[in-house]
Amino acid sequence: MSLLVLGTVALDNVKTPSGFRRDMLGGSAAHFSMSASLFTKVHLVAIVGEDFPKEHINFLKKKGIDLDSLKIGKGKSFRWEGEYKKEDFNTALTLATELGVLMGFSPEIAPHHRAIPNIFLANIDPDIQLGLLDMLHKPKLIGLDSMNLWINHKRESLLKLMKRVDLFVANDAEARALTQESNLIRAAKKLRNFGPKLIVVKKGEHGVLFYSDKVKFSFPAYPIEEVVDPTGAGDTFAGGLMGYLTKANKADAKTLKEAALYGTTLASFNVQAFGMEKTAGLTLAQVHKRMKELKSFISL
Amino acid sequence: MSLLVLGTVALDNVKTPSGFRRDMLGGSAAHFSMSASLFTKVHLVAIVGEDFPKEHINFLKKKGIDLDSLKIGKGKSFRWEGEYKKEDFNTALTLATELGVLMGFSPEIAPHHRAIPNIFLANIDPDIQLGLLDMLHKPKLIGLDSMNLWINHKRESLLKLMKRVDLFVANDAEARALTQESNLIRAAKKLRNFGPKLIVVKKGEHGVLFYSDKVKFSFPAYPIEEVVDPTGAGDTFAGGLMGYLTKANKADAKTLKEAALYGTTLASFNVQAFGMEKTAGLTLAQVHKRMKELKSFISL
Repeated sequence: MSLLVLGTVALDNVKTPSGFRRDMLGGSAAHFSMSASLFTKVHLVAIVGEDFPKEHINFLKKKGIDLDSLKIGKGKSFRWEGEYKKEDFNTALTLATELGVLMGFSPEIAPHHRAIPNIFLANIDPDIQLGLLDMLHKPKLIGLDSMNLWINHKRESLLKLMKRVDLFVANDAEARALTQESNLIRAAKKLRNFGPKLIVVKKGEHGVLFYSDKVKFSFPAYPIEEVVDPTGAGDTFAGGLMGYLTKANKADAKTLKEAALYGTTLASFNVQAFGMEKTAGLTLAQVHKRMKELKSFISL
Repeated sequence: MSLLVLGTVALDNVKTPSGFRRDMLGGSAAHFSMSASLFTKVHLVAIVGEDFPKEHINFLKKKGIDLDSLKIGKGKSFRWEGEYKKEDFNTALTLATELGVLMGFSPEIAPHHRAIPNIFLANIDPDIQLGLLDMLHKPKLIGLDSMNLWINHKRESLLKLMKRVDLFVANDAEARALTQESNLIRAAKKLRNFGPKLIVVKKGEHGVLFYSDKVKFSFPAYPIEEVVDPTGAGDTFAGGLMGYLTKANKADAKTLKEAALYGTTLASFNVQAFGMEKTAGLTLAQVHKRMKELKSFISL
């Protein structure tokens, strides 16, 4: 089993109380791939500009991530610049966005990628996500992530998408914004009624709420005392979740919980350093060690 | 083993999106007692005015709560009027406070109450809490709760108290305000360094974080779709926690987790109706049924 991810590959400038980093490898699909590749073969669908640093490309290749569907577009790479304030690490303040080659991007995928069974539509314009879905040959499990920008400005496309996917991942603010429900359980139920059978609400330090008709569970995140940079934590979570589900090739209650635990554990590493500084060198042994600690922290 | 609680007994007017109630039995010690009395004999130390409704007194008596140290003061009862808005059930907007007999209150306790081993100082002026401590004969386990008002205006008294208690209960906002730490794990650690060996941070729908040198755990709250009135939820939680610890007469990791689960479960009933409309008639059988559901929701 392998996993195809569509999303952004970006150059990130990030400022947090711990410091500042320029031109880091970022983007939803990059963070997702890094995390998911610990469990399964990942095929990445995205676009970068001609200016995209070779070192970032080589780094992804080295991680075993298949770049056959990574397009090098004419123009500049997508850039994001953001800041986190000490008082609220849950909210990224976007200082600048340069779409570059992302503008007018329509995904092209290598023919041998069309029949990949598991798909993750990481955060990117929902119309681009819809475009990819139409190219696929009978996917088995489709996961979807989005963001407030699309919830506010492309709600119709997003709702259309939700009817066609199996799993929807949202953070608490997104879940509330999309459903207009402040109560998260009711929000999760409403999201499920929008289409996806499996709903995963990420709650930052408060962990995860999982909602489906048959399986409902929740647990807090691994306790991190020193958050350095949360950029990509949600994508890293989704990568662990989908990566493990792909490896396990089933979706019973036990597997779903284990997948969410992997996602939470991986996200906890992500926030401890800028960009991928911590996740890039991560081994499964390190992940398992921390996951054991997490289990002991949350077990009854 | 029995349990002594000092705090307020009040008349509450509460407005929420679900409606309005006038002159309800409220106050930190009343909610605490109601909850704790499911597990152990509770002795209440508080003051009410001459105008306090007989029905509320009779109700507490009927619940088996010992009122030998409940003072009837000259003047009016303590009144609180508050509102919760749909968007934020975590924050009570205080519309009016009438201190009445609470002004100048110094607790007097019946002589046979001095040697009660387990004590809970529910939310009330920390100088009154300190006053009670000086009257007690070798208490075994002392719990403490407070609120933002005292954290901001009586910080010195509160810090003095914290050196003398074993267990400190705070909600997340209070924990952050008292420690000036936005990260809750760091806040909990700092609270522990203020004195109390056992720190319990209540996080509303996100449940509880327990922190001591040896034992650390966290779990989310029982999922409630329809919050009606959260007034007293924290006191109800503390009542379940301290009530069970008193009954169990030990404080190992398993007992502490069980106590926090009881507290969380009881608080979930509290928020489902105004005042004590739901908790007043609660049986242990109902509590156990819901606690089983909670355990299945949060177990791995």
